[in-house]
Amino acid sequence: MPELRRDPITGEWVVIATERAKRPSDFASHSPGREDQNTATCPFCSGNEGMTPPEIMAFRHPGSQRNGRGWWVRVVPNKFPALGIEGDLNKTGMGMYDWMNGVGAHEVIVETPEHDRHLAFLDNRQIEDVLWAYRARYLDLKKDPRFKYILIFRNHGRVAGASLAHPHSQLIATPMVPGEVADEIEGSRLYEQYRDRCVYCDILRQELSQGERIVAENAHFLAFEPFASRLPFETWLVPKIHASAFTAISNQEQASFAEMLRDTLRRIQLCLNDPPYNYTLHTSPCDEDDRGRFHWHLEIFPRLTIAAGFEMGTGIYINVTPPEQAAAFLREVSLDVESPVGVTSAGHP
Amino acid sequence: MPELRRDPITGEWVVIATERAKRPSDFASHSPGREDQNTATCPFCSGNEGMTPPEIMAFRHPGSQRNGRGWWVRVVPNKFPALGIEGDLNKTGMGMYDWMNGVGAHEVIVETPEHDRHLAFLDNRQIEDVLWAYRARYLDLKKDPRFKYILIFRNHGRVAGASLAHPHSQLIATPMVPGEVADEIEGSRLYEQYRDRCVYCDILRQELSQGERIVAENAHFLAFEPFASRLPFETWLVPKIHASAFTAISNQEQASFAEMLRDTLRRIQLCLNDPPYNYTLHTSPCDEDDRGRFHWHLEIFPRLTIAAGFEMGTGIYINVTPPEQAAAFLREVSLDVESPVGVTSAGHP
Repeated sequence: MPELRRDPITGEWVVIATERAKRPSDFASHSPGREDQNTATCPFCSGNEGMTPPEIMAFRHPGSQRNGRGWWVRVVPNKFPALGIEGDLNKTGMGMYDWMNGVGAHEVIVETPEHDRHLAFLDNRQIEDVLWAYRARYLDLKKDPRFKYILIFRNHGRVAGASLAHPHSQLIATPMVPGEVADEIEGSRLYEQYRDRCVYCDILRQELSQGERIVAENAHFLAFEPFASRLPFETWLVPKIHASAFTAISNQEQASFAEMLRDTLRRIQLCLNDPPYNYTLHTSPCDEDDRGRFHWHLEIFPRLTIAAGFEMGTGIYINVTPPEQAAAFLREVSLDVESPVGVTSAGHP
Repeated sequence: MPELRRDPITGEWVVIATERAKRPSDFASHSPGREDQNTATCPFCSGNEGMTPPEIMAFRHPGSQRNGRGWWVRVVPNKFPALGIEGDLNKTGMGMYDWMNGVGAHEVIVETPEHDRHLAFLDNRQIEDVLWAYRARYLDLKKDPRFKYILIFRNHGRVAGASLAHPHSQLIATPMVPGEVADEIEGSRLYEQYRDRCVYCDILRQELSQGERIVAENAHFLAFEPFASRLPFETWLVPKIHASAFTAISNQEQASFAEMLRDTLRRIQLCLNDPPYNYTLHTSPCDEDDRGRFHWHLEIFPRLTIAAGFEMGTGIYINVTPPEQAAAFLREVSLDVESPVGVTSAGHP
């Protein structure tokens, strides 16, 4: 069972993997290495369903069998979970230090049976179903009283931490509200206390009126480069109507979200030659209801630069591309291209 | 002039580089690339002093000329500074957003005239002089009322953000106390308020009594893996006698610090095949006097794993090597080796 340990100065938690712990020789190459590109050994490819733990849910064609072929979105437990699903939460002190056993959930959302078809080049209906799978897993895991927060995220490319090339997202449920999330919620609360308005709603108003950081807009969503972008081409997708939780999304909004996510990821892929990136879905903690103060959104981080000593010692990022320029480059991208098969693996060996 | 912009939700600042901003084509390779290995074109090599801006200070042999050969430690302005030294600080609002012009200092401490001689394989006296150069620059820059914090850090290897292989550290002075620093100071303050003791002094006591996370110890310093290590082989060097500011260091303590830094970096280099790493020197902000609550120390971060979506969305690191095991590996390293010339560039292409 992994452990959760807390830094006694900053209060930040870390996950310590105690099983299969890595030794110095495991780090010998100092290189992120290569993603697995072999569809015969890919556990997420159709026909290889037996290579994953039994599925949690799937969108399947009528008549197909659980853990067999015939699905178009499939959710499975992570075979090498960061946190373990079994057992009760056990908190204790170790002298001055705070400790918990690493209880949580770690799941994989396989976005398509096609190994080389990146999320940005799926059709809108398929992306909508990926997003419905996200929501279904949120709603199910929220019922577990051990979990305080659920993060859905996507790692694309080895430099962004993906070890398998087959398109997939991940979900981790944690037994505490993580520090970064607590900071965002507290920041939103303080802003509302001071101004009696939602900070994200105010950001939307200013971005819509200034225009220079907007990447794209549709019926329900705005995609823009934030004023204080930490990374070059950092892009946020924010719903235009205030809602604290992603789970409250309507059918119309989900279609709009899928369209905006596909549009934005395609712009990033085409503008930056299929860069490695992460995205993270920011929503309310499990025990906040939908009238809470937060404003859910999605943040995309292309991984084009390296956080070095200055960033690690101060938390201040040095961003070498002003967001106004990044937005202009992304707006200019022509989206009139067919899905380039293999785009997932083209850019980063 | 660079800009400082503040995230309206978290209050975190970022540096936006406005001059020579990078375009999509500048990121085309998605690879950290290679360090400059050519001593003829290396601006930090002896004989190439004219390739840097005029020196700020140097330890020089008698009779040698400023900006010529004959130095053993040399401090110069960074040719491509993250923050600019000229002008007054100007703070303003841009609608709801907070903005400052990017006033600060960005200097390079060249640690040796020898291109291939890594800091860990310099002799103790030379490392002491590097540390005295750190102190001299702190004391000088602290006098500038525009600066609120000074961070000294070291990037080693391309994956850790070093663009030049020649051994050097860097210094950045900022016009605000950075968020991560403020969090550490606030954490120390809260602990002292609750227990009436310094949190770092308590950590030293527990580590010395438990022993399992200790890497090395000498007269004045303890090197250990922190209980909540964020990264595999994360190592802290903490002075055993409480002092809030590095600048208050005595001659004896400086010799002890140099010895412990050399010892620890050699263990990391030999155990992990010359890994990329960062280190950061954590000390009091400029306007805190030496009776302040902080406890200065140095943190070393080998860069062996990748922070992916989960870390970016939560701030929770997943560490795949428990600190107790990392400490055991580092303690076992035999330090009876001569300086391997070229060790700086051997491990990470």
